[in-house]
Amino acid sequence: MPPDPADDREAGTVFLPKFDDRGLLTAIAVDAKNSEILMVAFMNEDALAATRASGAAHFWSRSRQSLWKKGETSGNILRVREILVDCDQDALILRCDPAGPACHTGARSCFYRRLEGEALVRVKT
Amino acid sequence: MPPDPADDREAGTVFLPKFDDRGLLTAIAVDAKNSEILMVAFMNEDALAATRASGAAHFWSRSRQSLWKKGETSGNILRVREILVDCDQDALILRCDPAGPACHTGARSCFYRRLEGEALVRVKT
Repeated sequence: MPPDPADDREAGTVFLPKFDDRGLLTAIAVDAKNSEILMVAFMNEDALAATRASGAAHFWSRSRQSLWKKGETSGNILRVREILVDCDQDALILRCDPAGPACHTGARSCFYRRLEGEALVRVKT
Repeated sequence: MPPDPADDREAGTVFLPKFDDRGLLTAIAVDAKNSEILMVAFMNEDALAATRASGAAHFWSRSRQSLWKKGETSGNILRVREILVDCDQDALILRCDPAGPACHTGARSCFYRRLEGEALVRVKT
């Protein structure tokens, strides 16, 4: 029997990124120095290519339907040091050096609130 | 002017999860004891409700188009200790106690390979 493509993706040594029916995969940016999760966004093939070519994280904005370089306006770019790939290759971890706060609100990480019952409590600046 | 709903979502203390046009948000499961990223998946409203009601992580399978309790077959459930919410409330971090390997391949984390050029190199067992 021919090899199962799923086996290739999971056990193989070849990068075969799997984009979903909208052409997207999930990218989690973490701080390379302490592994803190900074933000999560989506990448299409162009965003992944631009990230790899430039070394700076690029994403696909679903709301604006456009490619964006993280930090293009704010200057808070994410310099990508390492990329980890998950089992079925539809999600990436970008280990980054952030030039500043990763969140557009000014927080270091977008995940600055904890859910307590129905309330959100700020846990990070 | 009425308050901007985006401001409520970002700065407010009320949990207003934002599901996308497919009814999904992104959920990143991490190990509560060391913050290692274990897996990433999607949740619809039912998966989020089942997770919160049971304390065990539930997700929405896009490929099977069904609700699944992580570990229902393998026993490797993820007991959710804490939920962090991102700025626009369309992504969650689930801080979990994993009962066993989180990845269906048997790896502790789904992110067991690093991208090096076009090759994937195993970095975790």
